[in-house]
Formats: sequence, structure tokens, C-alpha cells
Amino acid sequence: MEFDLIIVGAGSGGYEAGLYAFRRGMKVAFVELSPETVGGNCLNRGCIPSKYMRHGAYLLDKFQKMEQYGIISKGYDIEYKKLKEGRDNVVVTIRENFKKFAQQLRIPIYYGKGVLKDPNTVFVEGPEETLKAKYILVATGSSPTSVGNLVPDGKYVIDTDQIWEIDYVPKKVLIVGGGAVGVEFAYIFRKYGSEVVLVEIKDRLLPTPDIPEDSGRYLARKLRELGVDIRTRTSVESWEKTQNGVKAKLTDGSEVVADFILLGVGRKPNTKGIGLEELGIEMDERGFVKTNEYAQTNIPNIYACGDITSPLMLAHKSMYEGKIAVSHILGERDWKKNERIIPKIIYSALEVASVGLTEEQAEDEDIEVRVGVASFVSNPKAMDDGENEGFVRIVADDETGEILGCHIVGPHAGELIHQVVHMIKDGKTVEFASKTMYSHPSLSENIGIASSEVYYGPISWVKRR
Amino acid sequence: MEFDLIIVGAGSGGYEAGLYAFRRGMKVAFVELSPETVGGNCLNRGCIPSKYMRHGAYLLDKFQKMEQYGIISKGYDIEYKKLKEGRDNVVVTIRENFKKFAQQLRIPIYYGKGVLKDPNTVFVEGPEETLKAKYILVATGSSPTSVGNLVPDGKYVIDTDQIWEIDYVPKKVLIVGGGAVGVEFAYIFRKYGSEVVLVEIKDRLLPTPDIPEDSGRYLARKLRELGVDIRTRTSVESWEKTQNGVKAKLTDGSEVVADFILLGVGRKPNTKGIGLEELGIEMDERGFVKTNEYAQTNIPNIYACGDITSPLMLAHKSMYEGKIAVSHILGERDWKKNERIIPKIIYSALEVASVGLTEEQAEDEDIEVRVGVASFVSNPKAMDDGENEGFVRIVADDETGEILGCHIVGPHAGELIHQVVHMIKDGKTVEFASKTMYSHPSLSENIGIASSEVYYGPISWVKRR
Repeated sequence: MEFDLIIVGAGSGGYEAGLYAFRRGMKVAFVELSPETVGGNCLNRGCIPSKYMRHGAYLLDKFQKMEQYGIISKGYDIEYKKLKEGRDNVVVTIRENFKKFAQQLRIPIYYGKGVLKDPNTVFVEGPEETLKAKYILVATGSSPTSVGNLVPDGKYVIDTDQIWEIDYVPKKVLIVGGGAVGVEFAYIFRKYGSEVVLVEIKDRLLPTPDIPEDSGRYLARKLRELGVDIRTRTSVESWEKTQNGVKAKLTDGSEVVADFILLGVGRKPNTKGIGLEELGIEMDERGFVKTNEYAQTNIPNIYACGDITSPLMLAHKSMYEGKIAVSHILGERDWKKNERIIPKIIYSALEVASVGLTEEQAEDEDIEVRVGVASFVSNPKAMDDGENEGFVRIVADDETGEILGCHIVGPHAGELIHQVVHMIKDGKTVEFASKTMYSHPSLSENIGIASSEVYYGPISWVKRR
Repeated sequence: MEFDLIIVGAGSGGYEAGLYAFRRGMKVAFVELSPETVGGNCLNRGCIPSKYMRHGAYLLDKFQKMEQYGIISKGYDIEYKKLKEGRDNVVVTIRENFKKFAQQLRIPIYYGKGVLKDPNTVFVEGPEETLKAKYILVATGSSPTSVGNLVPDGKYVIDTDQIWEIDYVPKKVLIVGGGAVGVEFAYIFRKYGSEVVLVEIKDRLLPTPDIPEDSGRYLARKLRELGVDIRTRTSVESWEKTQNGVKAKLTDGSEVVADFILLGVGRKPNTKGIGLEELGIEMDERGFVKTNEYAQTNIPNIYACGDITSPLMLAHKSMYEGKIAVSHILGERDWKKNERIIPKIIYSALEVASVGLTEEQAEDEDIEVRVGVASFVSNPKAMDDGENEGFVRIVADDETGEILGCHIVGPHAGELIHQVVHMIKDGKTVEFASKTMYSHPSLSENIGIASSEVYYGPISWVKRR
């Protein structure tokens, strides 16, 4: 059986690339470990189930303000099993939809481990099938890593592959890592009733260069308000099992007794044992496949997308790279990777969204910038919704006014940021953004206000305080 | 006292124009009826208080699905007075902020009725002050109208100026008019526990040419599911007072007994008695001030914005026109009115948002279009949030792919639509929209999917069903 394109890994990136290749007229096949792993980490053990639980936490938050809307709650009970059930139901529905849709389109999925044998051959272990194709796209994703003495065992030390099995509200959780995973689960467990200690070895939450310090600090304040015990510049020195859980000694000298330790410390690419080394595909010392701006490896007809290409492990980055690869196969050269237009969104006690450069990154690149900020505190729609916290921050080139970055904390930041993704992609200026007609009242108005702050100079409340 | 610009009416449009003129270096003054009317209809008796109540209704809706998130509610009581209190608190806070901010900027507000005496003079009745200015912007807004025998009295027949005084949940309400006001209040009262009959004389809800039939019908289905008794092609033939309310005879032959009738049937411009006729300012037969593309009247130094310029009475249209007027005063000619980029958003049982052309409007203009639809039913983020209803509909020029319109029903439609507002303003194509990197999972992905449906041809679920 000869295909135009075999995609090894039907996660978010592989699946999206496959549909795209299909609609562009190619004969496509997927190779995926098992029917239960279609959709990959994002769907089965990542962004989809966590966002479901996060919505539950958001609903619980709403109880604090319901009385202001004339709704006098008589209280509620938590049944964590129902949360798990509802969550798994969404995951399975989407997964089954994926499979049914591929079937409708007659795109075959071969189940088993796919191993590259030569630049045109994938061998599927299990069914022991040999598939041939003109092109191969490797999209095998990543797995959680451990750190030092914290080795996941599914009971005392739990990683993000294992956390989904928990079917009770833990009394106390120790979360290691203040990145996206850490702050999301800190919020979820806290709202569902757990005590939460969150340790982060660096000096702030969300300590990555593409998220500004302000965003991390704002979120930390909010999580602390909700009772999350955040310890920055702290890590776990040692830990031991107890009768009912764990006892950990932290580097700040304190001791934490908890039901378990949740590890949210990073992931490693799944690039071993699938024939990449044997074929001579170039990888870096951490095991990431080296690709060019078209997602192409050093073997011209083999492409790679997603978590195996860089430590920025986002489903949509993978989906985008996969489509770029397909376009390149079709001879197109105008669609390339672009770091500047990758939205990064964290769903915690507040939504935190970033795209493009922070002020610090611009400084490092010797670009003079101007910054405009619009607070949600006085945004009328946010006030109506009882969600008036956070801000929109626009970073623009001082000389040209071109928007270089946008950083939002607050209501629906994860949707709002897309307006600026489109604009950055197109080189739009703060003048452009300030002259759009934003609906009133809307949260989107803050994008106009922040842009006007840069374009016309500051007038807003925030700057004057 | 000589000003650069006097703005008669400190509602949304006037206020925004005033701030904009200030930041552009002009000496500005506001004339407004009273300290209680600053912010105009939108703030005091329109979009701001109604969106607050709508958020309460949205929270009540959430109770239907909480169990799926492991939250077992023990029930709730409604205290409508607290809703009113919370709502009025937000309105007063914003209003006081407006006044404080003007004061900080040293922009005076003269309280009283402003009457134009000549092209450079406004007389303020009450304080009896005569103000002089190089330019005048008239932004006096609109008032509710009555229809036939339905004359608002604040008790039996209530208009949108009077509805805010209600401090109890009516047992039953008869709402006349299936436009924005009607569908918003139908949802609010229904969720707070009223029986609701909604009559609309035309054959569908939201019966305006710039909202596609599909949007109105989808919303109607949802409202009916919630128990709203919708009667299209129906109006009130006669009505009478009863001991506890009203009894109305409808044109469908039925009789409705209700606590009161809520009128949501339209508004008329406030253009009488403020000196416009005397100065010879051109108006149409309905009393709307005629303005050019720069919001300028036939008297060159007098401008008008907002509800007094056309029946499309949206706060942001007024804010936009006000800023265009100020830019024109400053000699700029590149910022003009543009019907195509006005977002229209309705917050009911679902959010309904439209910008640009519908298919029908395009047909009327002899433009061949292609349409792409992406359903929220299978959108992963919408599923996570338990809000997977509705769709994104993109209308594009068949030949060029330029996006001409977008129509969204569903979660956060009112924010999502802005992505397309920016694009339509800039003449962007479906190719552009389909090649943006949308965060996964996000509602925004549906904009990319609908655009891809047009650009690459249909593949999605909806089309195949």
C-alpha cells in the first residue's frame, strides 16, 4: 500500500496535519499506538481534560459572587467522581469523533508503534505491517519527566499522565513546578477543597521568558487570595512515604505533609526507539528533532512537528507545524514557522495569555518599545460579569508603532489574545488597533484602550494611579 | 469661556469623544442633563445594567450542568432586590468613575439642558450659562417609543427607561418585540423564574437585515427550550388593566394574563427642543440628523454622533462617530464611517454577534459569496465549558476570498466577533484567517475552521450532516 503521506502519531498535530493533507488531495494514513491514544496527550492527558476541570473550578469561584446577582445558594456538595466522569465523557466523545471522522474520510489508522525503516517505509509493530509513502511526518509527542529523587509511581509521586486516575478530593497536595501545569492544578484542587502547596524553584510563577513577570505576579496574588500556599525559590529536598501519603522536606526548611506530590516539571520528546537515529535524522543533545522553517528534517521527505521539535510543547504549535509541512510537500514556500505568533495560554485562577515579545525580550533584541496597559478593573463588561481583574498589555515598536507583543491576564484572555495574534502576523500597528470599532460593553475594548495608550500617549486610570 | 469643542450629551458617544478630543489636545466641555444621567442610556438604562442581569441569568443556566462538574447544588433562592442592588452598584460606580475622571482631566461638565443658539453657542438651561466654542458635537441620544395603544405608564406598560425600577420577579411577563431588548429580557426573566410570552410581529426573532435568519432561528430554539413562549407574526390587538396586572388579546386570537407588558419596540432620536431646527440643521422625516461620512452636519462646525444620526442605536457606533468627528475637526480625512465594521451583539440565552454582510445582503448587492460554517457542538473548548451550542458563519467574496461578513451564535460570540471586525476593516481574506495559529483548545479555532471551509472547500462535520 503506497501513501502520499504517513503520519506517525495521531495526536493534535498529526491528526490536524492529516485532515489538512486530505483536503489538499493527498492519500494519507495515520499510525497510532492504540485506539485509546488517538488524540494524543492533549486530548487524553492534557489540555482537554484539564480545561474541563478548570471550568468546574471556575464555576465554584462563581459561588462567591452569586449573591450579588440575587442568587442565594443553599450550598453544595462535591462529588469528585462525577467531575471525573463528566471529564472522561468529553475526552472519549472527542476521541470517538476523531476516529469516526477519519473513517468517514477513509483515512486509515494503523494501530501499533510506528518505526521508520527507511525514508519511505514505516513498520507498524503489533499488526506487523509495512507501509510505504512518498513522505513521512513524525508527530510522536512527549512524555512527562521526573526530577531528581521525585520519580513518578502513580501513588506518592504523580505525574501528568497519572493524575487523571485520582477519583477523590485530596486533603492536601504538594505541587512541584509553578509552570502551566502547576498553576492550573493548584487552582483546580484548591477550588474543589484541597489544601495546596505550590513550590517553584525560580523566583516567580510562570517563569518563562515569553510570559512577562507582571502576569506571573498578578496570578500569584490571586492564587494566594484563594489560599494556595505558594513558595518560590523553593524545591523538594527530600521526601518519604507515610501511612497515608507523603512527607516532604522543602529547601526553605519547612516540612509538608500531603496526600501526594504532583509533578509538573516538564516533558521529554518521544524520539527514541522509532528509527530516527538509525536513519540519521539530526537531533539535538536533548533529543529534539532538528527541523527547518518548513518543519522538514535533514532527510528531505521526512518532516516532524510538535513536541518532538522544541520544548515549547503546545498542541496548536504542533497543528501549525504539521500544516506547514504538508504545504511544503505541496511545493508551497510562503507558509513558515513564526515564533512571534504562537499564543501561549494558561487557564488558572485567571486566564493568562501571551503572544509575541515581552518588554524584556524586546530589550534583549535592542528594540525600543512603548507599552500600553488597560485594566479590567474598570472595564464595564468585566464589572457586569463580576470578573474585573487583570489587564491587557500591548508592547509596540517605539518608532513604527508595530505591535510586537500582547500579554493579557483576566477574563477570557485565551480568546481575546487571538485578535492580536492576527495583527502581529500581519505587522499591524497600535494605530490600527486603536481605530477598530469595539463593541460596547466588551472585554475587547481593552485591546483598543491599551493600543490607544501607546498611540496617543497615556490617559487611562492605571497609568495615573 | 471659549472652548475648542462643546459636547452636548455625555453619554457613551459624547463622553468617549470628549476624552479623545482631550488627548488630542483640545479644550473640551460637556453639557449633560444632570449628574444622574452622565453615561447616558447605555450606562444608566441600557447595555450596562442589562448585561449585568444577563450574567445572573447565565449563572442560573449553569446550575443545569453543575453536576457534570461534580458540584451537587442544594438549591438556591432568588432575591431579586439583591440583583437590582448589585446592578445599580455597578452602574453608579461607572458613572462616578466617569465624573471623577473628567474632573481629574479638568474637563468641565455643565449640568442642564443644552440648547444650540448659533453655530458657536450652547446655552445651558438651569444654570443659565452661555458657552462658546469653535466646534459643537451633538450627542443627545434617544428615547423609547410607544406603539399604537401600548403607551408606557411605568406600571402596566413598561418601557426600557422604566424596567429598572422593578424589584420583584414577575409571575408572568408579556414582552412585545423580538429584537435585542426583547430577547435579552425574555432570557433574564425566564431564568429568574417568570413565565414569559414574547411576541414579534415579523416572522422571526432579531428580524433585522444585518442578522442572518439562521442566527435568529437558532436563538429562538434555545429560548423555547428554556420555556419562553415565542409567538412570531403576532402582536397585541388590545389590552386592559386587571386587578393584578394586565390582560392582553393577541392577534393570534389568544389571551395573555401578565403582571405587565414590557415594550421593546424601538427608540426615537432626541433632536427636538435643542435648537437644531432653529439653526437649520438638516434632519430626515423621522428626526434623525443628517451627517456625512465624517459625522459632520450641514453646518460645518457642528457634528452629530450616535442615536440621533440613524436607527442603528449602538453605544459603540456613537463612540466611533464621535472620534471620527474629532479627527475631522483636527484636519484628518482618513478616518470615516464604515457600516461594514460595526459589530452587533445580542446577549440572550446565547450570544449572537454579527458584523458585515449576510448572504442575503450580499445577494442584494450582486456579490457572489461562499460561506463556511463551523459548529460549536464539536468544539473541544466549548465542550469543556459545557457550552457547545451555536456556530461561526463566515461570508466571503467568491472570487477574491475577502471576508465580507461573520455571524456567530454561541459562547462568547460577543468577544470572538472582534477578530473578524479587525479583518474586515483591513480587507483580509479567508486564506489569511485560515492560516492564523489558533490556540488549542479555544473557541477561536472555529473562526479558522469556518474560514478553511471556504478556502479549501468543505470538510467539517456540519456540512456532512
